[in-house]
Amino acid sequence: MAVQVETNRRVTMASRPEGFPQESDFTLEEVEAPSAGPGEVLVRTHWLSVDPYQRGRMSSARSYAKGLELGDVITAQAVGEVIESNDSRYEPGDFVLGQLGWQDYAVARGGVLRKIPPGIEPQLALHVLGATGLTAYFGLLDVAQPVPGDTVVVSGAGGAVGSVAGQIARIMGCRTVGIAGGADKQEDLRDLYRFDEAIDYKTGDLRSAVKAACPDGVDVYFDNCGGEISAAVHSRVNIGARIAICGQVSQYNVERPQPTFHPGFLIVVRARMQGFLVSDYAPRFVEAIPRLARWVMNGDIRYRETVTEGLENAPRAFIGMLNGENRGKALVKL
Amino acid sequence: MAVQVETNRRVTMASRPEGFPQESDFTLEEVEAPSAGPGEVLVRTHWLSVDPYQRGRMSSARSYAKGLELGDVITAQAVGEVIESNDSRYEPGDFVLGQLGWQDYAVARGGVLRKIPPGIEPQLALHVLGATGLTAYFGLLDVAQPVPGDTVVVSGAGGAVGSVAGQIARIMGCRTVGIAGGADKQEDLRDLYRFDEAIDYKTGDLRSAVKAACPDGVDVYFDNCGGEISAAVHSRVNIGARIAICGQVSQYNVERPQPTFHPGFLIVVRARMQGFLVSDYAPRFVEAIPRLARWVMNGDIRYRETVTEGLENAPRAFIGMLNGENRGKALVKL
Repeated sequence: MAVQVETNRRVTMASRPEGFPQESDFTLEEVEAPSAGPGEVLVRTHWLSVDPYQRGRMSSARSYAKGLELGDVITAQAVGEVIESNDSRYEPGDFVLGQLGWQDYAVARGGVLRKIPPGIEPQLALHVLGATGLTAYFGLLDVAQPVPGDTVVVSGAGGAVGSVAGQIARIMGCRTVGIAGGADKQEDLRDLYRFDEAIDYKTGDLRSAVKAACPDGVDVYFDNCGGEISAAVHSRVNIGARIAICGQVSQYNVERPQPTFHPGFLIVVRARMQGFLVSDYAPRFVEAIPRLARWVMNGDIRYRETVTEGLENAPRAFIGMLNGENRGKALVKL
Repeated sequence: MAVQVETNRRVTMASRPEGFPQESDFTLEEVEAPSAGPGEVLVRTHWLSVDPYQRGRMSSARSYAKGLELGDVITAQAVGEVIESNDSRYEPGDFVLGQLGWQDYAVARGGVLRKIPPGIEPQLALHVLGATGLTAYFGLLDVAQPVPGDTVVVSGAGGAVGSVAGQIARIMGCRTVGIAGGADKQEDLRDLYRFDEAIDYKTGDLRSAVKAACPDGVDVYFDNCGGEISAAVHSRVNIGARIAICGQVSQYNVERPQPTFHPGFLIVVRARMQGFLVSDYAPRFVEAIPRLARWVMNGDIRYRETVTEGLENAPRAFIGMLNGENRGKALVKL
């Protein structure tokens, strides 16, 4: 029996943001609801993910993914419930993960969805058991390769990726130092994620704070931020340091970003700086997800969610996340 | 029988260079000749090495080696002949390699010298069978890790390190692209070192030239230069590229070097940028030197020397090398 869904609300890009995005760069529109064709699945979205990388999709600059055009639905990972399925692997009521975008309903081919097993809160597939947890896992273990006893510094440590990266470093037996902005996040870093040291980049002299927090220097830097925060950390890295470039959120909204780094510094400290994308590790997600799940279950990895209600508020949640207003994973609940 | 050597001429740092070094930053002075104490060896210098890294020693900025103080003899690798030896491993007439500095005579403990086997031209131990050849060997094979068929771009390709790096890449079965300035060096790149493509950064649009020379993009970039040259190469690197940071000669004489690089770019191309120092590979020199010697003997590695005569002309040779006036290895013959 075909399900009748009358209308679909969706958020599209009204104008390409210049510098920091504004709510006026987005439009909420109502269109005819989609229906599932052969091999397709109709999903009702329950949870939307709000992530820094989405800012890159809104730019015309070269990036690792195809950019958005004006009028396109904002691409995003989302979790939803199957309403109608023309793929034998899915049944109505199943929860699935996919690139469903900021909209109430989406149609997708079955092959690009992933079923979320019952028994876990489905939105965890959007963070600690999904893209952000996997980003932390591979960025830390595969790119940065810490060894027990290493001092591991994480910027953006109060965010969805940084908090997990710090906790995996802690599981690895490293000394962990988190950098985040504001008193609330300092509390999260110390009490929730159990970093050995927490640094507030918004107060005091950052270089002195990094020096005080890292008396033996920095062996691994898991960098989500770039800019001045990273320059302060670089000033303390040890010989042979590994710098994993996960994100550079400080630069995403700068109209004409200026270079921030001297490659010659890598000679002085014989260090490695490496960028990565979690999508390149897709064949190894099956290795990582059970480990992440075990660590979440046994309490080694803790998380926090900042939930905004309503599709119409997704742009505000996104802008707030870029401003660092969220604590932990930013989500929109429909 | 003790050898009587009356006077020693030496070149010292008269003032710390600001920006580009001037001849007036150096003084030639005459002092009493040194004599060899217990366990020491007196060496008469025959060949001095002139290298970009020496510029770093003259700065007060943080570097990987202790800097020079005013009045210090300019540190340099040199090749000389043993005049007097109080170490049973050396005899008068032996040729040795060591950190002898810019001076006619030097005294060193035997343990820090390396004997040069008879049968090779001794000055080769200062370049193709010494520090610059080893820098190319480990930087290319250990840091950049090319695979046959890769496009390998080398900046400073007409210099002592770059020319060997390009030729080892060629031996590895890579497509090699050299960047150097001026018509003479273009000739060396094509005819002597047999790069597949040679680019003159002094003429035309560098980005277009890199694009034309690398139709399949850049897999490995062996970077001796930094700055604008590197920015042009980065614009063409492939996913998974390896960027070995060997030197940044374009930045050494800039009074207040500005950052030149966006780390976020490494995310876009999932690339690794790594600095290294040849001295860290000292335990593996025994692996590399026989290979380099074999390649030199069989003609797979060719070299050129630019020889300046006379200790008093060492500062001029050094300044000329920083200006890129040398073709191949810059040496001073005493």
